[in-house]
Amino acid sequence: MTLDDTWFTELAPEAGSAFSLKLEQKLHEETTPYQRIEIYATEAFGNLMVIDGFIMLSQRDNFLYHEMMSHPALYCHPNPRRVLIIGGGDCGTLSEVLKHPEVKSVHQIEIDERVTRLAERYFPELCQSNNDPRAKLMFIDGIQWVKDCNENSYDIIIVDSTDPIGPAEGLFSEPFYRDCQRILGEHGIIVQQSESPLYHMDILRNMYQAMRGGGFIDIATLFFPQCVYPSGWWTATLACKDQTLTTFREQEAENKTFETRYYNAAIHRAAFAAPEFFYSQIYR
Amino acid sequence: MTLDDTWFTELAPEAGSAFSLKLEQKLHEETTPYQRIEIYATEAFGNLMVIDGFIMLSQRDNFLYHEMMSHPALYCHPNPRRVLIIGGGDCGTLSEVLKHPEVKSVHQIEIDERVTRLAERYFPELCQSNNDPRAKLMFIDGIQWVKDCNENSYDIIIVDSTDPIGPAEGLFSEPFYRDCQRILGEHGIIVQQSESPLYHMDILRNMYQAMRGGGFIDIATLFFPQCVYPSGWWTATLACKDQTLTTFREQEAENKTFETRYYNAAIHRAAFAAPEFFYSQIYR
Repeated sequence: MTLDDTWFTELAPEAGSAFSLKLEQKLHEETTPYQRIEIYATEAFGNLMVIDGFIMLSQRDNFLYHEMMSHPALYCHPNPRRVLIIGGGDCGTLSEVLKHPEVKSVHQIEIDERVTRLAERYFPELCQSNNDPRAKLMFIDGIQWVKDCNENSYDIIIVDSTDPIGPAEGLFSEPFYRDCQRILGEHGIIVQQSESPLYHMDILRNMYQAMRGGGFIDIATLFFPQCVYPSGWWTATLACKDQTLTTFREQEAENKTFETRYYNAAIHRAAFAAPEFFYSQIYR
Repeated sequence: MTLDDTWFTELAPEAGSAFSLKLEQKLHEETTPYQRIEIYATEAFGNLMVIDGFIMLSQRDNFLYHEMMSHPALYCHPNPRRVLIIGGGDCGTLSEVLKHPEVKSVHQIEIDERVTRLAERYFPELCQSNNDPRAKLMFIDGIQWVKDCNENSYDIIIVDSTDPIGPAEGLFSEPFYRDCQRILGEHGIIVQQSESPLYHMDILRNMYQAMRGGGFIDIATLFFPQCVYPSGWWTATLACKDQTLTTFREQEAENKTFETRYYNAAIHRAAFAAPEFFYSQIYR
């Protein structure tokens, strides 16, 4: 069958596949100095944000991505007080980070303010913590920000960006990781979305190489489902400044005082289990 | 954008979503007494089998499903010698099961012989073990087969069927599970594909209820990615006749003597980790 224009379709040309969502209506469309943003109401996935033709998030399933971008890294760190989010303009990651009472400050550096303003309007449930006194939202260039930061400025850096083509390309490069390594404090951890293990092993390989080149000691990948992203299977990759990522504050994760829909301590342990092909291609 | 008829598209109407693969050509199409089977060559997923409009498997990613339908159940059983596969006509599950040297016999009961004959032609890599002397392929009705079997006939039953609508509906029912429970030996385990945790929680709930009603003591669900199935996230549910599913032959899985692409001992442990929403809706 063919899909007409009552569907939003994202192609993954590199994999000859496509994912589509049935639309109710277009809610908004604009071109900012950085990108083209579209917002749709879908039939069954709630509101949908699309940037430059790529699905960013839906109301139905963004909890998977946002929980996995935040809680594993935060529980891997012994005492995460200072968090930097680069990108993350929809504020879903921010709202998860702020669930941790030990977090004292979060700087969110999103280059395009319009992403956040549109999230406030169309994804209000993700923006409820934007006025938390611990959160500071800045709309500037993340690569410049990490260049200018002092040593030991953050405990956790979360790179919640678009794909490594276009404006986000520099966020997957060795000079960027070297800056991140420098501005992280003791036991500091960076976590970054790292695409699909079924479609993008080349990106993952390059990222490992760049992170190692940037001076990180241990690197490990988390695997999780993400229906609206190409292949439906996604990863985030963690790198630690000075120790291995095999332990986490397990007891505290077991007894977490906030609600999640996907993450729990068992999921934390499970998400680090790598498929056999990943061992042979990356961890070998 | 719209997708024209150079794509095969499977709709998931219940979720307002669709997944599509770019085609090179149609290789075969026929209507059997049971269903309509189509085979396509895709641009990047190898050959594709479609039954009644639903994607059954692609050459690129079927390893995920077939490995997870076989190895976890087999390693959960202390000594799996006698295996029954119901459905599974493409023989991918069969070929994984036969990798276990401790397996002495496999009966595969597929209602539609044409599925197997077409798999032999278009998915030959899945059918290389079909002439293994331990394997017996029968093209008859699986529900009738389990009704007619004696007690203690099998150690493992793998239900590798289509969705619980149409011909496979009876394979998700309490009377069927009661027969399975009866024909399993000591420590016997059934494993069955159980749809998407994002789209089909109603099916999972009904399945748990029917399995419990059928007399199974412990039930647990495995989670794994499966790109070509709705939502890209899939499950298989295991049920054991007389004990819990928390242990498995871990050392033997660590030292397995055959190759896999997804499964390993860490993936085995990880796959049983349930998302928080699953705990509250199923395991509560």
